[in-house]
Amino acid sequence: MAVLFEHVTAVTMDPANPVLKDAFVAVEGTKIASVGTVRPAGEFDRVIDGTGKVLMPGLVNAHTHVPMALFRGYGGGCDLQHWLHDYIFPAEAKLDERCVAAGAALGLAEMIASGTTCIADMYMKTETIAQTVLEAGISANLSCGAVYFGAPEDFSPEACNDCGNHIRLFENWHNAGDGQILVDASIHAEYTSCPPAWEWVADFAQKHNLRMHVHVSETHSEHEKCLEKYGKTPAALLDQYGVWQNGGIAAHCVWLSGGDAELFAKRGVTAVHNPVSNLKLMSGVAPLFFLRECGMSMALGTDGVASNNSHNMFEEMKTAALTQNYHFAEDHGQLPAADIVAMATVNGARALGRDTGVIAPGKIADLILLDFTHPNLFPCHDILEHLVYSAAPSNVVMNMARGKIIYENGAFLTLDLDRIRVEVERYALPHIFGGT
Amino acid sequence: MAVLFEHVTAVTMDPANPVLKDAFVAVEGTKIASVGTVRPAGEFDRVIDGTGKVLMPGLVNAHTHVPMALFRGYGGGCDLQHWLHDYIFPAEAKLDERCVAAGAALGLAEMIASGTTCIADMYMKTETIAQTVLEAGISANLSCGAVYFGAPEDFSPEACNDCGNHIRLFENWHNAGDGQILVDASIHAEYTSCPPAWEWVADFAQKHNLRMHVHVSETHSEHEKCLEKYGKTPAALLDQYGVWQNGGIAAHCVWLSGGDAELFAKRGVTAVHNPVSNLKLMSGVAPLFFLRECGMSMALGTDGVASNNSHNMFEEMKTAALTQNYHFAEDHGQLPAADIVAMATVNGARALGRDTGVIAPGKIADLILLDFTHPNLFPCHDILEHLVYSAAPSNVVMNMARGKIIYENGAFLTLDLDRIRVEVERYALPHIFGGT
Repeated sequence: MAVLFEHVTAVTMDPANPVLKDAFVAVEGTKIASVGTVRPAGEFDRVIDGTGKVLMPGLVNAHTHVPMALFRGYGGGCDLQHWLHDYIFPAEAKLDERCVAAGAALGLAEMIASGTTCIADMYMKTETIAQTVLEAGISANLSCGAVYFGAPEDFSPEACNDCGNHIRLFENWHNAGDGQILVDASIHAEYTSCPPAWEWVADFAQKHNLRMHVHVSETHSEHEKCLEKYGKTPAALLDQYGVWQNGGIAAHCVWLSGGDAELFAKRGVTAVHNPVSNLKLMSGVAPLFFLRECGMSMALGTDGVASNNSHNMFEEMKTAALTQNYHFAEDHGQLPAADIVAMATVNGARALGRDTGVIAPGKIADLILLDFTHPNLFPCHDILEHLVYSAAPSNVVMNMARGKIIYENGAFLTLDLDRIRVEVERYALPHIFGGT
Repeated sequence: MAVLFEHVTAVTMDPANPVLKDAFVAVEGTKIASVGTVRPAGEFDRVIDGTGKVLMPGLVNAHTHVPMALFRGYGGGCDLQHWLHDYIFPAEAKLDERCVAAGAALGLAEMIASGTTCIADMYMKTETIAQTVLEAGISANLSCGAVYFGAPEDFSPEACNDCGNHIRLFENWHNAGDGQILVDASIHAEYTSCPPAWEWVADFAQKHNLRMHVHVSETHSEHEKCLEKYGKTPAALLDQYGVWQNGGIAAHCVWLSGGDAELFAKRGVTAVHNPVSNLKLMSGVAPLFFLRECGMSMALGTDGVASNNSHNMFEEMKTAALTQNYHFAEDHGQLPAADIVAMATVNGARALGRDTGVIAPGKIADLILLDFTHPNLFPCHDILEHLVYSAAPSNVVMNMARGKIIYENGAFLTLDLDRIRVEVERYALPHIFGGT
């Protein structure tokens, strides 16, 4: 299918042409064919008038747990450890494949309607998530977040379910949908496993050339307890076991030391900032200026909906910008809007090892269209400021993932929202929480 | 007109019945006639099915400058003083009545679509705003924010334009629309006027029994410079001139002392928290737990759009909740969602001296309906948590102000959005910023 966007304002995230007015962007199959201010030759199956609209790269939610849409707002008011142990872990123990499929579809619907085209997800029953993502149409780096609570001396790949999960997920799903799905190696966190598990996952990543996805220094107590127990920070400790050799994603990074950030910069590990979740669970605010000074690349994520409580990447951009102003901006001035939009697009794409997040010829056609005539976006003195501080999911009038329009003017073209709601209401919620 | 909402979940903000499921809420004329779980007798002009929906009091934006919608995002990246002097004041100097009418209509459209039914506004050319508000249908406390930059010894009511503005606004608009418009006495801030002006405004308020609306201790430097110049904080200094005798609104209150907060509690002055604007302009975060401990009532506002950059009261609730968690929650736990929703409804109504913000018989029928089947609100484990952390303007499917439906399913019933856009684009923007 060939699609032409005409007379559109394109926020390309391409430093050569950051904002193109009255632009023409052509899509051929899954890729962007041309970008310019002259109408390209050729026939198009569909021509979309972009007058009054902004075309930008789809948003990359670089750290999330999509099936947790089922737990939206569950356990509100707690800090991370109470929330996990008193609410989330007991509820998750009841999840079956069908619950996970329903929760994933619900979470993906919210993401698609709010302009997300690409995610890095970490959760259990990951093959079920893969199937749901494939149908929904967006791209996903999927990982199963290895957990091992046994004694280190009892560890074996057979004794650790998540080793088998890693193997099956990789064998059955890596590169599925012509690269729509990529598999990342993954450790849930330092505090939920032990050295032999880290060694196994690091070897697995090395063997198959996979990126890594880990929660790192999310809370002060996690960071300090690791220092106490091992004499090293989580980042440095995992490095000792070869975990970061292929780069990847360190989620949260609220309490990284300067040495951690420099190590991550060297290893090609991106800090994924989750400002809403970090504040909701009282974990803190990651110091973005400091991480950047240490050379780290930074991206953005919503984390799971249960601790957010939404999958709204526009809100994540705004919260990221605002919260840096509380203490950090005095010395640095504000974080420029262009840097925040880059975190939500091109930086996220790079962190996931994907050739998207930029509107340029040859890139994957992950594109969203925003209606800038809506009263919350009008008038517009600065497009990038608007994307960070004014834009909302309701301004997204089209979501194109890998060249295919999957959402337009409020209608889902790959998901059946009514069916998802019924499945959540009649099957998943009674299954997890009891009652009818 | 008589309207019945049936089978709706009502978040009443009435402590006697905070959440009523499968409720019936009847509206007769401008007021709520009955609230209960049994269908009331009588004939209704319209019956609205509330299945899957939440009915709540309309949101009260208790500190804003609505025509600044024209400056959405203008001067981004500055702190308050640079933003005011380098961008906003020069642009405002070019405003005429027609610009203010266009900006006010645009700002009101965004507010109405996002569930606001009542505002406290402070701006110039206030009579023009009053006319626009009257047509739009929401309720407003309007004030002209007295400014006087002359030498104190040269002050006279004739030499200070805003004295005349106070008199005309009061005589022509106080209680207009059967109380739809109320006039507040107002001083812009301590640092933009002087003692004889404060005396005059305080006397005016006293004479006509008006509430007061003032910016107070928004930035650290404002608070400290006042201490240096007068040996008193802004709150205490203005009190010395009788400014707070009838209570009212102290906007921002980021840097209040304990003595200030206790004084305000005694005088019946509400702190209006503007968390997004305070972070965007790098002013800080008002310490809500501390203000509450000192006995103050607290409400919420967006401030002007130019420093926000939206009129989204749901975002304001979420930012208020999240930002208290950064430093303050360690000692207090999180601010309960119910308290945040109260700030955005009943507390705001009280601060404005209005009998609304609660769903109970006899109250003004300011009501909004949210569709809780939207994917960002589903499933729902806790309605109040959802209103604070998940709800968005796009979930508002109906806005009823003073018993009249003024917005429904995306359609504005009192405002002509296309006409407003044309007026902003073809008249206001060229008039202020030049060009075409």
